[in-house]
Amino acid sequence: MPIVQVYVWRGFGEDKTKSVIENITKVFVDLGIPEHAVEVVVNEIPKSHWGVGGQPASEKFKDI
Amino acid sequence: MPIVQVYVWRGFGEDKTKSVIENITKVFVDLGIPEHAVEVVVNEIPKSHWGVGGQPASEKFKDI
Amino acid sequence: MPIVQVYVWRGFGEDKTKSVIENITKVFVDLGIPEHAVEVVVNEIPKSHWGVGGQPASEKFKDI
Amino acid sequence: MPIVQVYVWRGFGEDKTKSVIENITKVFVDLGIPEHAVEVVVNEIPKSHWGVGGQPASEKFKDI
Amino acid sequence: MPIVQVYVWRGFGEDKTKSVIENITKVFVDLGIPEHAVEVVVNEIPKSHWGVGGQPASEKFKDI
Amino acid sequence: MPIVQVYVWRGFGEDKTKSVIENITKVFVDLGIPEHAVEVVVNEIPKSHWGVGGQPASEKFKDI
Repeated sequence: MPIVQVYVWRGFGEDKTKSVIENITKVFVDLGIPEHAVEVVVNEIPKSHWGVGGQPASEKFKDI
Repeated sequence: MPIVQVYVWRGFGEDKTKSVIENITKVFVDLGIPEHAVEVVVNEIPKSHWGVGGQPASEKFKDI
Repeated sequence: MPIVQVYVWRGFGEDKTKSVIENITKVFVDLGIPEHAVEVVVNEIPKSHWGVGGQPASEKFKDI
Repeated sequence: MPIVQVYVWRGFGEDKTKSVIENITKVFVDLGIPEHAVEVVVNEIPKSHWGVGGQPASEKFKDI
Repeated sequence: MPIVQVYVWRGFGEDKTKSVIENITKVFVDLGIPEHAVEVVVNEIPKSHWGVGGQPASEKFKDI
Repeated sequence: MPIVQVYVWRGFGEDKTKSVIENITKVFVDLGIPEHAVEVVVNEIPKSHWGVGGQPASEKFKDI
């Protein structure tokens, strides 16, 4: 433990994913948890399949 | 809140996904929850990777 | 019930997935749960998006 | 299919949960999916364990 | 890897949970995956919060 | 977005949870994501229900 499941929009990419893995792991290491015990899984979801306020993010946040 | 994670078979598509986002959001709005607070994430899973009764849906439900 | 969400590295493939569906279902049938009630969903995650010990598995486990 | 995992704050309660189960199921039935195939799981999470904008909801939304 | 998230009804208990952990792990070991790499998390959900076919399991399956 | 689901052993507690919420949120803010868009949910799981290497953590890691 811990297991961390991260959900982001598709297009997040490998560089930011690598950074998120590294830095979320540090959050737990700073609490005294051994580094090797931390697993982080990053799930990229198409904006068309992510709804906020009843609308797909692909429509609501066209320009992001 | 709330966060809603939906799992459907691959091929569900953007139109049904949009409808699901809109209508699941309404379910919570009807309970007095503010629309902007509802997040719905739709995950499409290949039928080969979805097992029911010990068999992949790609075999068990070939004709759906 | 039960619902089982399995997360594996991309490349796991349909044959191993089929085996996992069949055998995890058996685990519950052996406990007296009806076969048709067991759902198993297998999610394949790119190794670049799966972090162990602060590093993507694509770097940490290059040769697996 | 589908499987729907809902996350709400603790205190949501059985009545609203029952309503959410009934009405989310209807969303899929209206798309032509058989009623018996819809599973909805409602997870109640303590507000202290739900962070928005970097703060627990128990602090950020004290009066809700 | 792998990570396995299991959802069962509340009341499943520690003995069956232990059995599920042991036997699901074996499913992966039989595929050549190292035992120490398998993590299984069992989530017990109140029957009132688990909907099947639009009804809470606490009503639909009163006698199970 | 993003949504972050964290799974830890029961007993993690409110203080560490608060710290995790604050610091995981910072990980995304440092990548240019607006703070208010980050949701972090922390799920505490009994050690008896968390299996590593085929054994419940309550047995395998008795002294942690």
